Amino acid sequence: MSFNTFGHLFRFTSFGESHGAAIGCVVDGCPPRIPLDQKDIQRELDRRRPGQSRFTTQRQEPDAVKIMSGVFTDERTGTQFTTGTPIMLLIENVDQRSKDYSEIKDKYRPGHAGYTYDIKYGIHDYRGGGRASARETAVRVAAGAIARKIVPGLTVRAALVQMGPHKIDRSRWDWSAVDKNPFFCPDVKQAEFFEGYLDGIRKAGSSCGAVIEIVAEGVPAGLGAPIYAKLDGDLASALMGINAAKGVEIGDGFAAVAMSGIENADEMRMGNDGKPLFLSNHAGGILGGISTGQAIVARFAVKPTSSILTPRKTVDRYGRDTDVVTKGRHDPCVGIRAVPIGEAMVACVLADHYLMHRGQVGEGTAWPFKPGA
Amino acid sequence: MSFNTFGHLFRFTSFGESHGAAIGCVVDGCPPRIPLDQKDIQRELDRRRPGQSRFTTQRQEPDAVKIMSGVFTDERTGTQFTTGTPIMLLIENVDQRSKDYSEIKDKYRPGHAGYTYDIKYGIHDYRGGGRASARETAVRVAAGAIARKIVPGLTVRAALVQMGPHKIDRSRWDWSAVDKNPFFCPDVKQAEFFEGYLDGIRKAGSSCGAVIEIVAEGVPAGLGAPIYAKLDGDLASALMGINAAKGVEIGDGFAAVAMSGIENADEMRMGNDGKPLFLSNHAGGILGGISTGQAIVARFAVKPTSSILTPRKTVDRYGRDTDVVTKGRHDPCVGIRAVPIGEAMVACVLADHYLMHRGQVGEGTAWPFKPGA
Amino acid sequence: MSFNTFGHLFRFTSFGESHGAAIGCVVDGCPPRIPLDQKDIQRELDRRRPGQSRFTTQRQEPDAVKIMSGVFTDERTGTQFTTGTPIMLLIENVDQRSKDYSEIKDKYRPGHAGYTYDIKYGIHDYRGGGRASARETAVRVAAGAIARKIVPGLTVRAALVQMGPHKIDRSRWDWSAVDKNPFFCPDVKQAEFFEGYLDGIRKAGSSCGAVIEIVAEGVPAGLGAPIYAKLDGDLASALMGINAAKGVEIGDGFAAVAMSGIENADEMRMGNDGKPLFLSNHAGGILGGISTGQAIVARFAVKPTSSILTPRKTVDRYGRDTDVVTKGRHDPCVGIRAVPIGEAMVACVLADHYLMHRGQVGEGTAWPFKPGA
Amino acid sequence: MSFNTFGHLFRFTSFGESHGAAIGCVVDGCPPRIPLDQKDIQRELDRRRPGQSRFTTQRQEPDAVKIMSGVFTDERTGTQFTTGTPIMLLIENVDQRSKDYSEIKDKYRPGHAGYTYDIKYGIHDYRGGGRASARETAVRVAAGAIARKIVPGLTVRAALVQMGPHKIDRSRWDWSAVDKNPFFCPDVKQAEFFEGYLDGIRKAGSSCGAVIEIVAEGVPAGLGAPIYAKLDGDLASALMGINAAKGVEIGDGFAAVAMSGIENADEMRMGNDGKPLFLSNHAGGILGGISTGQAIVARFAVKPTSSILTPRKTVDRYGRDTDVVTKGRHDPCVGIRAVPIGEAMVACVLADHYLMHRGQVGEGTAWPFKPGA
Repeated sequence: MSFNTFGHLFRFTSFGESHGAAIGCVVDGCPPRIPLDQKDIQRELDRRRPGQSRFTTQRQEPDAVKIMSGVFTDERTGTQFTTGTPIMLLIENVDQRSKDYSEIKDKYRPGHAGYTYDIKYGIHDYRGGGRASARETAVRVAAGAIARKIVPGLTVRAALVQMGPHKIDRSRWDWSAVDKNPFFCPDVKQAEFFEGYLDGIRKAGSSCGAVIEIVAEGVPAGLGAPIYAKLDGDLASALMGINAAKGVEIGDGFAAVAMSGIENADEMRMGNDGKPLFLSNHAGGILGGISTGQAIVARFAVKPTSSILTPRKTVDRYGRDTDVVTKGRHDPCVGIRAVPIGEAMVACVLADHYLMHRGQVGEGTAWPFKPGA
Repeated sequence: MSFNTFGHLFRFTSFGESHGAAIGCVVDGCPPRIPLDQKDIQRELDRRRPGQSRFTTQRQEPDAVKIMSGVFTDERTGTQFTTGTPIMLLIENVDQRSKDYSEIKDKYRPGHAGYTYDIKYGIHDYRGGGRASARETAVRVAAGAIARKIVPGLTVRAALVQMGPHKIDRSRWDWSAVDKNPFFCPDVKQAEFFEGYLDGIRKAGSSCGAVIEIVAEGVPAGLGAPIYAKLDGDLASALMGINAAKGVEIGDGFAAVAMSGIENADEMRMGNDGKPLFLSNHAGGILGGISTGQAIVARFAVKPTSSILTPRKTVDRYGRDTDVVTKGRHDPCVGIRAVPIGEAMVACVLADHYLMHRGQVGEGTAWPFKPGA
Repeated sequence: MSFNTFGHLFRFTSFGESHGAAIGCVVDGCPPRIPLDQKDIQRELDRRRPGQSRFTTQRQEPDAVKIMSGVFTDERTGTQFTTGTPIMLLIENVDQRSKDYSEIKDKYRPGHAGYTYDIKYGIHDYRGGGRASARETAVRVAAGAIARKIVPGLTVRAALVQMGPHKIDRSRWDWSAVDKNPFFCPDVKQAEFFEGYLDGIRKAGSSCGAVIEIVAEGVPAGLGAPIYAKLDGDLASALMGINAAKGVEIGDGFAAVAMSGIENADEMRMGNDGKPLFLSNHAGGILGGISTGQAIVARFAVKPTSSILTPRKTVDRYGRDTDVVTKGRHDPCVGIRAVPIGEAMVACVLADHYLMHRGQVGEGTAWPFKPGA
Repeated sequence: MSFNTFGHLFRFTSFGESHGAAIGCVVDGCPPRIPLDQKDIQRELDRRRPGQSRFTTQRQEPDAVKIMSGVFTDERTGTQFTTGTPIMLLIENVDQRSKDYSEIKDKYRPGHAGYTYDIKYGIHDYRGGGRASARETAVRVAAGAIARKIVPGLTVRAALVQMGPHKIDRSRWDWSAVDKNPFFCPDVKQAEFFEGYLDGIRKAGSSCGAVIEIVAEGVPAGLGAPIYAKLDGDLASALMGINAAKGVEIGDGFAAVAMSGIENADEMRMGNDGKPLFLSNHAGGILGGISTGQAIVARFAVKPTSSILTPRKTVDRYGRDTDVVTKGRHDPCVGIRAVPIGEAMVACVLADHYLMHRGQVGEGTAWPFKPGA
């Protein structure tokens, strides 16, 4: 059962609403004796934090994380380590603007989870989305900061590769550009274009979607638990579970459909280091649900923000037709801040599978095998 | 932990290899007293069975299923019911052609799971894919046949909507056509085109991909267990876990990215039946991970079959460069037979969430609510 | 995977160490719209709290619980309800006496978990037991307070029925006495004897064990998920997982071994209310892992507190022989405060199984059946 | 969720009824490349098989097991290995005597699960117990035979230590005697007494209970996943889940209650091999839910067989008072055949925890630690 717990061996249980006292999570199953400082987590949270440019919501949430359990400081060295027991991360909510919600209190906002939560639970938490708020994703980023420390040599990076109908030019991909523009965009030139584009969207009282691509390097070959906990299956679930996500791809994704089997084959040759070398990576680093050792490449589509200033037809919880406008401080493109969230979820999936693989298979076998052995 | 178990409350555990004695599964958590006959399951299996047209593999697998446990026959009526205990479904393998594998025995086929299974487990089951074979998907179809009986009023249908680069014309969508052409294609005209197209692909020693769309109608509103067992998250995992799947979409999927927030909003009005009416379904029937009551629409992309007659560069398990050709009876487009598999997986996810919802919420609340109540 | 999560549909994830910032838990899967106030939880915590008599540790832990998420207040009525989303309960640690641990810092205390945690995790949290401290059990009591509200009509009570070698006289069993003596003892006369007995134990620098009996009434028939989540199997796990527990019994338990099959049979007759009446309850309310509708009776044995003032031989974490004395404020009989913990764990198991049963079976069938129907 | 799946990383899913076509299980999560032959499993099954002496049921169930998947034979050596994928074990039912059940068809047998299954599922499988039959335990023994191969150096043995009110004399404990008498009794003299005792019980149309003790040696220190998957918690669940079990103890169990804390402390000294030596084992090899490296000692109580020839009062499924006699071939003491079952369950728990520990902690730390390191 998952509900509010993500993962199997490395897993975290999330709690909290956008307008409650706090959000946070309990990270369980983390290996012991991993150096872990509050700063390691804060650094990642700061990347997702709102209000860092005019293109994200102006809410001021410092998202200051506290480690409440599961660590121990070595007296001699002063280094703080994980203990192998649950790590509780707490982020108090501070910017709960006491605004007047009376106007939208009983109305459902099209595209929002307000309606479905009310149908399911009989509760309408009109204050900023409640549990369904994107605020919860801070917790994922925090858990992901711990996950990143588990697989030796792993690097997980992500970038925004499309905004509205506008894709980046992949020939201009520059990882170092990603953290230098407000869109996490690896194409400097397209990032400049996005500034004007998004200003226009916002002024029109509308919003737009985005595509985020995550690349994980240093993934050991052999991770993945077929048939029903395949690495790509778990990645798909992790990414589709991000707020507003509507699509997920691994490797060439939907584009692979139009390719021939001849083109799509990732041919192999032995590398000079005694490891196999793939001549392409259409598969995105996963075959049969198991990592190949190549970079893992995944993408997810984020729909346009549903909180918009343009009035839309709706009903209220008493079954009456009405219209609704969502005022307030909303991101015109929630896909931007989804970039560090995507990274975090991929890091969590990989940490989890790393531990599961080690559990079942231990140190594994030495490839290549010896003929006749 | 999943590994070879799918689902939470309604779940099945799969076993078997393509060239072993049998494949099958144990379905656990099924409600009791549901009428279940072997024919109910066989009917679904027959739709996935190979060798039914020249466009699928010519292997002759009758895929005859036996119910080995978990049912009880009412003596008076002769009706067979589920008992609430594990239902074991057994499909014996009969067409294990004793061909000579010596040529490819130690070679990896590009795009196949052979390499990753060997890296992970140190075992190379060269005989037709072993556990990673698409043969395992028969088990999913069998489990899905039971799942279909759990949610009252549920209908799950699927169709092939793209083959290679060629999409169907959605204005010609005809559900009744789907079972009347060898491609499960709802566009009769495009199905005719596919015949020639696929013949060409096969003659070229190549293969092509496909996109499958699944539509589930009669889904009660309120199904889904946020945040980490969202209905769309579980659907994504279920569909991405199908052999050769590389992408998954819910509702408008990746196309939603290019829409404005104004267009993308699924506006609501009260229907004459006292239920809310959505004026569009961009969301594909899911908001915040919970079903809205609209039709659930999902799609998945299947890559071109990797078993092709054209030689490809590879290595063997002893670390030597070599070339490989995959002879044998392979589907030029595995996406075709993925249609009933996609249906089955969606049915299983919905059955599981139906039971989970009933567990947590019981009969639920009566919407719309009474003002002042 | 459980580790620090207890339960399946109704479940809680615990965190915190005895000498960290806080302990607490996240309760997930709770049905929505259940009235829940902080006082409901505090009341139960107060029963377990130390320092309420001279027979328990004199540490002053107010164990003040805060509900940090998962509730919503109805504006009209002012009633606070569960929302169906995670309920985070936080208990801050206040009495972390900054004593000098240097003497025992590297030594293992016989019978304590210090040695095994160090072997497993490579971390020695010498400060009061760390994660293995009985302080964690406050969390279980808090979660149990929520669990008690889930099964309609359920009452779970417990009592101490043996201390050291001294059993109570069951003919004097008086539930109303339980909360009126410092031992949760239902036999007033034996409770008086226990005062002097336990004073003697403490003066001798020793400790003693106890047996706790839990009785759950109002349990619907049909709860339990055979074969490997039987109600008695889950109760056994829940009770054996309590700190210092060494034995668990259901119904007559070990005493049933010495009975004949003729005596042990719980015969049945139809009651006047149309329900079956059992003429005895040797089975403790469970047959085949499923509740019968009778009272569920379980017992668990708690070993003598291992923290004692008498020096014991041990080794330190550097592999050196040494002796250890455990000073500090310890319960001479931890079994006393285990009474509300046992109640809480039983309530959690029953709430979980109630939801699982409802998930699989719904409202169930109306017994007795109609002949010929 | 468990229901019919036992374990976490090493786990098996069981299926089948006593009078259906077959019973069996799917073992999932087994490490790859473990030599596994059908004989390894059959040997264990033969120990549990009925009809081997006049003291167990005379049903003739050969319990011939077939490995249906999950193994691969090395062509050069002929050795059969596990592949890391699901191992399906099938045991066909052969002795389904077509007797006339009409007399008891609608009646519940006191102490049987027939009543509770009917209340829960609305199905009364009167034929020999259906899913609740002890026949299912053959599956556990089969899975246990695989589990035994996973933890290097592990030995799990069990013995009957009490029958009815008669305990063995522990000073006469002889492991080599266990497989040489029909009671798995380690006390030869008491085994002789049991022959006459049990003949008397049977002649009286009654039955008796038993206590079984399991000793696991070679268990690495550090196994166990606190707080809610403690090793003793999981053992308790595993043993209490065995048919007719009513009590479980670890180490001194209920007897520890009467001991003083001074006596109960398992003192430690360094052994000559650089490992810690415990001077006693009251704890039964587990502290804080984690193995100490000592022998793990567990016991469980089995109630008298409820199927007896003496008439008992009962009701039928239509709510009518009646009497019932259970004819047929029943064990007068089901506790005897529970001995190999107890062994198997303990082996499964240990294998599971071995893999979970390896997953979270890897190879772990080298104890003792270096001072100042």
